[in-house]
Amino acid sequence: MSAFNPENAFWSDLFARIAERGRQWLGRPLASGSPAQGKIAELASSLMSTKGEASGVALARAVVAQWKTMDKPARRAWFAMLAEDFGPAAEKLTAAVAEWQAQPTPEAAQKLHAAAEPLRQELLRRINLAPGGTAALVNMREELLGFLRDNPELEAVDADFVHLLTSWFNRGFLLLRPIDWSSPAAVLEKIIHYEAVHEIKDWNDLRRRLKPEDRRCFAFFHPQMPDEPLIFVEVALTSGIPGNIGQLLSEERAALALRNADTAVFYSISNTQVGLKGISFGNFLIKQVVEELLRDTPWLKTFVTLSPVPGFAAWLDASRKESSAILAVLDGHEKLAALDEPGWHEDAVIRAGLEPVLQQAAALYLLRGKGANNRPLDPVARFHLGNGARLEHIHASGDMSAKGLRQSFGVMVNYLYDLDAIEKNHENYADSGEVAHSSVIRKILADDVSMLTRNVQSLLGSEKSRKKEAKLP
Amino acid sequence: MSAFNPENAFWSDLFARIAERGRQWLGRPLASGSPAQGKIAELASSLMSTKGEASGVALARAVVAQWKTMDKPARRAWFAMLAEDFGPAAEKLTAAVAEWQAQPTPEAAQKLHAAAEPLRQELLRRINLAPGGTAALVNMREELLGFLRDNPELEAVDADFVHLLTSWFNRGFLLLRPIDWSSPAAVLEKIIHYEAVHEIKDWNDLRRRLKPEDRRCFAFFHPQMPDEPLIFVEVALTSGIPGNIGQLLSEERAALALRNADTAVFYSISNTQVGLKGISFGNFLIKQVVEELLRDTPWLKTFVTLSPVPGFAAWLDASRKESSAILAVLDGHEKLAALDEPGWHEDAVIRAGLEPVLQQAAALYLLRGKGANNRPLDPVARFHLGNGARLEHIHASGDMSAKGLRQSFGVMVNYLYDLDAIEKNHENYADSGEVAHSSVIRKILADDVSMLTRNVQSLLGSEKSRKKEAKLP
Amino acid sequence: MSAFNPENAFWSDLFARIAERGRQWLGRPLASGSPAQGKIAELASSLMSTKGEASGVALARAVVAQWKTMDKPARRAWFAMLAEDFGPAAEKLTAAVAEWQAQPTPEAAQKLHAAAEPLRQELLRRINLAPGGTAALVNMREELLGFLRDNPELEAVDADFVHLLTSWFNRGFLLLRPIDWSSPAAVLEKIIHYEAVHEIKDWNDLRRRLKPEDRRCFAFFHPQMPDEPLIFVEVALTSGIPGNIGQLLSEERAALALRNADTAVFYSISNTQVGLKGISFGNFLIKQVVEELLRDTPWLKTFVTLSPVPGFAAWLDASRKESSAILAVLDGHEKLAALDEPGWHEDAVIRAGLEPVLQQAAALYLLRGKGANNRPLDPVARFHLGNGARLEHIHASGDMSAKGLRQSFGVMVNYLYDLDAIEKNHENYADSGEVAHSSVIRKILADDVSMLTRNVQSLLGSEKSRKKEAKLP
Amino acid sequence: MSAFNPENAFWSDLFARIAERGRQWLGRPLASGSPAQGKIAELASSLMSTKGEASGVALARAVVAQWKTMDKPARRAWFAMLAEDFGPAAEKLTAAVAEWQAQPTPEAAQKLHAAAEPLRQELLRRINLAPGGTAALVNMREELLGFLRDNPELEAVDADFVHLLTSWFNRGFLLLRPIDWSSPAAVLEKIIHYEAVHEIKDWNDLRRRLKPEDRRCFAFFHPQMPDEPLIFVEVALTSGIPGNIGQLLSEERAALALRNADTAVFYSISNTQVGLKGISFGNFLIKQVVEELLRDTPWLKTFVTLSPVPGFAAWLDASRKESSAILAVLDGHEKLAALDEPGWHEDAVIRAGLEPVLQQAAALYLLRGKGANNRPLDPVARFHLGNGARLEHIHASGDMSAKGLRQSFGVMVNYLYDLDAIEKNHENYADSGEVAHSSVIRKILADDVSMLTRNVQSLLGSEKSRKKEAKLP
Repeated sequence: MSAFNPENAFWSDLFARIAERGRQWLGRPLASGSPAQGKIAELASSLMSTKGEASGVALARAVVAQWKTMDKPARRAWFAMLAEDFGPAAEKLTAAVAEWQAQPTPEAAQKLHAAAEPLRQELLRRINLAPGGTAALVNMREELLGFLRDNPELEAVDADFVHLLTSWFNRGFLLLRPIDWSSPAAVLEKIIHYEAVHEIKDWNDLRRRLKPEDRRCFAFFHPQMPDEPLIFVEVALTSGIPGNIGQLLSEERAALALRNADTAVFYSISNTQVGLKGISFGNFLIKQVVEELLRDTPWLKTFVTLSPVPGFAAWLDASRKESSAILAVLDGHEKLAALDEPGWHEDAVIRAGLEPVLQQAAALYLLRGKGANNRPLDPVARFHLGNGARLEHIHASGDMSAKGLRQSFGVMVNYLYDLDAIEKNHENYADSGEVAHSSVIRKILADDVSMLTRNVQSLLGSEKSRKKEAKLP
Repeated sequence: MSAFNPENAFWSDLFARIAERGRQWLGRPLASGSPAQGKIAELASSLMSTKGEASGVALARAVVAQWKTMDKPARRAWFAMLAEDFGPAAEKLTAAVAEWQAQPTPEAAQKLHAAAEPLRQELLRRINLAPGGTAALVNMREELLGFLRDNPELEAVDADFVHLLTSWFNRGFLLLRPIDWSSPAAVLEKIIHYEAVHEIKDWNDLRRRLKPEDRRCFAFFHPQMPDEPLIFVEVALTSGIPGNIGQLLSEERAALALRNADTAVFYSISNTQVGLKGISFGNFLIKQVVEELLRDTPWLKTFVTLSPVPGFAAWLDASRKESSAILAVLDGHEKLAALDEPGWHEDAVIRAGLEPVLQQAAALYLLRGKGANNRPLDPVARFHLGNGARLEHIHASGDMSAKGLRQSFGVMVNYLYDLDAIEKNHENYADSGEVAHSSVIRKILADDVSMLTRNVQSLLGSEKSRKKEAKLP
Repeated sequence: MSAFNPENAFWSDLFARIAERGRQWLGRPLASGSPAQGKIAELASSLMSTKGEASGVALARAVVAQWKTMDKPARRAWFAMLAEDFGPAAEKLTAAVAEWQAQPTPEAAQKLHAAAEPLRQELLRRINLAPGGTAALVNMREELLGFLRDNPELEAVDADFVHLLTSWFNRGFLLLRPIDWSSPAAVLEKIIHYEAVHEIKDWNDLRRRLKPEDRRCFAFFHPQMPDEPLIFVEVALTSGIPGNIGQLLSEERAALALRNADTAVFYSISNTQVGLKGISFGNFLIKQVVEELLRDTPWLKTFVTLSPVPGFAAWLDASRKESSAILAVLDGHEKLAALDEPGWHEDAVIRAGLEPVLQQAAALYLLRGKGANNRPLDPVARFHLGNGARLEHIHASGDMSAKGLRQSFGVMVNYLYDLDAIEKNHENYADSGEVAHSSVIRKILADDVSMLTRNVQSLLGSEKSRKKEAKLP
Repeated sequence: MSAFNPENAFWSDLFARIAERGRQWLGRPLASGSPAQGKIAELASSLMSTKGEASGVALARAVVAQWKTMDKPARRAWFAMLAEDFGPAAEKLTAAVAEWQAQPTPEAAQKLHAAAEPLRQELLRRINLAPGGTAALVNMREELLGFLRDNPELEAVDADFVHLLTSWFNRGFLLLRPIDWSSPAAVLEKIIHYEAVHEIKDWNDLRRRLKPEDRRCFAFFHPQMPDEPLIFVEVALTSGIPGNIGQLLSEERAALALRNADTAVFYSISNTQVGLKGISFGNFLIKQVVEELLRDTPWLKTFVTLSPVPGFAAWLDASRKESSAILAVLDGHEKLAALDEPGWHEDAVIRAGLEPVLQQAAALYLLRGKGANNRPLDPVARFHLGNGARLEHIHASGDMSAKGLRQSFGVMVNYLYDLDAIEKNHENYADSGEVAHSSVIRKILADDVSMLTRNVQSLLGSEKSRKKEAKLP
């Protein structure tokens, strides 16, 4: 007998039977031919029933499998069903409200809370039983976000997704893992894909960011999604605080000997999961990375970002268009006209003249440009200041790439994480929107201190400026 | 200079400073002298405040550290505080109720749900930020359970623990891991400690249960508690279905060659975490273990338990005391009197005479002895039947240990997991309490079929029997 | 005090001291300024001395560090020193020879063996003490091979490298590891680099070879060189035996569902370490990969290669140039003239005409084209036949890439690993050079069976053919 | 059809066939009935033949399997066969000797070396192909050692084992791994079993040595024997240098807070593999453990042993019996008579009187008691001094256990590893047997300095003392 002889039908037959048996046991086969949406609805209903107790994992698996094959209309129908059929049980809720109003005891409040919980929360928890269930739910939320604008009635469904995902992606469950040139390619290709700040062109570019001894990268992972970094930060170890991203990432640069590094520069932070929008872990990330770095390279003294200022160009353009008074306080503000000339940044003389003006303008933007709740207009500033960092430095020619010029005329900034000051900075910022900043920043503004003394008070008095620049203190 | 010279004060000084710095950064030192309860209350309050956003992990760490040092009164005070001060925000809830009553839209229902959520849920989520936070919360729940009887007002607090722990210990987050002689000692000592069914005497005993090639053990773990098995099952691979636990665990037995095994016997299932009481994963465990076993030893044909019948002796004693009619149907029931003699089980003749009577009595107990909701009186029976297993066999002299004699006069049973019948069994059981059982069991009863035919109907008609044995169908 | 304040000189000073201490302890600093070759000679001498016992690892580390900085002349000098100064101890050897001649006891033979061992073997063993020592020695051997042609006196040194590396890279120490899309990028970039048969263009190309469910790759690793695959094989799982590499690697192809695969195709085997030339593990690799595949996909029936025929084009060209008699037996051999026309393979008609002729010519080349020791001329054939495979099929248009056309006019072949026949095939081949082949191959030849009957005998009789084609049986 | 139905014969049949196929492929079944020795000889012969090339791994596997079943006589016969039939090929060796004598070129020397290599070296290398081959060879050597005394003709075989094992267990291939309470039980039970210095009573005792934060354990492993520690060292982290092993291992002691530790105490070093006798890694172990400890607890200042003095009691008894002159220099030496009284150590007064005398006597033993090659008589002293440590302290009542009293009247010592002095100490010791020692030791002797001045010179002049105590300088 020749077991592996291709002529022998025994083996193919055998394994077909094993495989079939496996399928029966591991998951109900989906009846083919039934319309996708109808099918998943039926599965969801089984999952919530008695049957779900015996075959929960298999049913959840089938829901996840079904979801993956569904097209857009079927998915919208799925969410509509969640909204309409899986809200709170109306009768139970009415009764609980009545009971609570009769006597608002803790027990009554608890019953009310339970009765007000939409059934879909339990459904989502049961879908999570499936292998890959968590990832599927994150993916569902991503889809859901796409429907929200045109289907505001789905907001309630989204609230339940947010509630569960917030609980499940609690920082306590996340794992911080270093990403380096020994990480699985399956993870690394996601770093290339998701890098949102300074594009990674290809694998060679990635190697330059991960392999040299003066580079680090860290990401948060969820145990249920081991190949999916949720958020990651890229770090350069440097001697002193750098101000230019082009130099930091230059292909030609030589790696710094580790022992000569004194500064860790967070130069890129990227979220990856659209489906986790609004569930933030960025503030935990930076602090834990600082701990990790101190463990391995305890001689580092400074922890700082090199950050874009994404809203600066738009703000400056608008301010100039409106002849905003805030610009008027700047000596040399007339030079800003050069920005309208294409290629201004390639003319060394013009650029040299503009640099101090841009630096000061950016300082005004970050310190005085306030929006809702007296918070800075700039989203990156809000993130780091909200974390307790302080604005440390402003570099006029920090990012001369097309993107850098477009969003901020090349300006970049450093936010400093001073371990002793984080909490106080955060509280001041949370209380009053106060922007912590360094003496360097004070000096940038103070170069014009006489000018400011001369002008600002009067500006503040001017009705027009108050209306246009409500954020000026 | 000699760096590691004991005379050199430099190093001790240095590392004291590093360590101190570390402590400052990693966590606020707790003011000493403050009463523990007061302290943790203050920390909890900080954790819920603005400050909690910047220093959440450090504060959570401090709460966990504080909890560990607290004595019983301080802990009861902590729970009282959770009950009183961290319920739902009253005003917000009143407003949400009003809004919902005015117009019961999905949005209003959602707001109502949010407003009814006790603040302590968020507090517990934030405590979970700490390293070891999940384990600390499970431990808190364990303590809480101890207070419930005398402090029923803490039920609402317990409900919130249950809600969060159920969500966090969702099957989707649990990891099934084999436990064997290569597992960490830190895990194995917990297996010894937690084994609840057939005591593991010492490490040698443990080795006999894990190392032979015909033995297996599996446990569920939570990623946040990697050294804590949550529930584990011990498995013997056998040839045929065994009926005697003493032989199965005998020190002298020789291991079965793996290729000769056709049956997997689940002979012990133990929960470990009191703090997770009521959050069940046992039903998932057995099914996933079957999958694992089929992967490595695909030739296994039978999946069966060897289970105790913990309630049988008490039921039989009570039935005899009351001269319960159900016993009267048994031919030879007068032999049961021998059970009152100490040492009955050591007399071979008496034992041989009793075995068929005990077997039938146990069949009656399991099939006819019903309690609330028409479910069997026996808790182990309820567990396996609820999982979709069927009662396969009853062995009169299955466990002749002191414990076995005490709880069931030595009777043990097999519950069979027939992969093709699980779902149907479960549904029948869930619908009507129907106890699935094998032809073997039918035959045990049918040995007395004429007797039954003769007697049962009349018994069913008798008023007295109906009152005493309400569970007889 | 602000610990991580950049102004604070304390920390930089501290860590400089720690680092310096570390360097003193972890390895002797190399005196700068000393000529590299002189330095390594001195280190080698220390390593062989008393000092080497106390500081062996540190000295070995220094040798390895020094080696890496040395230029070509310094390296040649190093090998010359190994040849001249680290041979066997002459006196000891003379004495051992004398003793053995006096009385050739086992003890005397053993002493002789020990005395004849060159000192450099011990030196190389001591260099291996260093972290990275094994890799450094493999690298040394690679360099040494480069010097051999012009420095035949280094052959003795090479023999010692071979002796030690053969012992250390014994199959028993190698680890077979799967390579997939979850493997570390540091390993994967070596797969790209070392692939020697069908070039991997870039990371996307690599992903296509590793990620689809019908592709596998395995490599041998040495524990001391965990990022360095020593040899790797790429495998395609297919339905039936394929004959065309272009289709197998096509970018457009859809992956085969695993359950439909019945054949494993080894389509590329590459050695990576020049320094391990002559130390073969290829024969172990294929057999162990078959075991691995059978573990995970036990329904595979056929294990086969899709191999190039690298020597065919050169052989055919030479045979045609000499008007070799062996070609004369081929009906249609005149069509071979078309091969001289560039672009012949793009003309469908010409190609169709040529295919049967090429197929038969390749069969003759592989079965009749014999070299030294009656082994086939083709190196790939020698490898697989020596492993016990049999020649299964010949495909005329198997590889139409430039390389494929150049080396074999597009011909590819399958060698079949029939598990039941490997040993017998190997023995027949080892004894007499017999080339095991399938009935398909027999039929390819038999298409011309009448012709062969007609012609071969006479050819065998012809003096001329015997001289030109001495390998014809 | 019910796949896992016990009535269904299909499955058992099927898997029997799979298993059988597996056996055929994975290894030749051994013909039953053949005498074991004959069988293994045949396998060895196949392994060295052509067949061995095709089926090397399977044959090696069979040799290993066969070896395990062989009884003592069969094993002795195996070694006899290795000695007689697998020596160097006589003819080849004679020819190589002749060639070398004709012209002693490097090539001739190399050929001579190759020809003098016994065939069994190649055989052992091929046995190593088997999974578990390395462990089997270590086990073979262990058996071989048992035969050596009565079979000196096996020395040549042993030399080949030593040669290969030395090469394969080169420090460069060993892995240092921490052993702690998270290590696999399969490893830990070996620690219990092999601990040779201070017995580990049971698993609780083991836990006390591994789990507290002030305890460490490290072992060397070979990649091919992952569950077998080759040598391990147990470490206590302490504040100051301890002198009493009973206190160090006391069940009642509280663990020291890590930050308060300044000293690492190596209190037990055990070799585990008899089969690796004479292949030492102990000197590498301590140095690498120091590196590891400095990485995690860089504030440690002192690295020291707490060691037994195994030869002291025997030496002292002998010296007293001979009325050795060396004892005469000790003031109070008459007190030593008390040692002859059982229970002397339980009488506090006697013990207090003896302690300074024992301390001084031990100092004399360690510094003046010299044996072959002017090395100390004490084996533990030779090990640590040979490693470059210095004798730091002598404790009179260091180990009052029965074993401690028996071997050294309770005396223990510390050997200090001063990182800056190791190399110099080692060289002095290697050159002249000089015993490095601390000022404390100098003071112990100097307490009697006048006495020494008074007596030693004259003693040195006495003929009698010179003969009896040849080691006194």
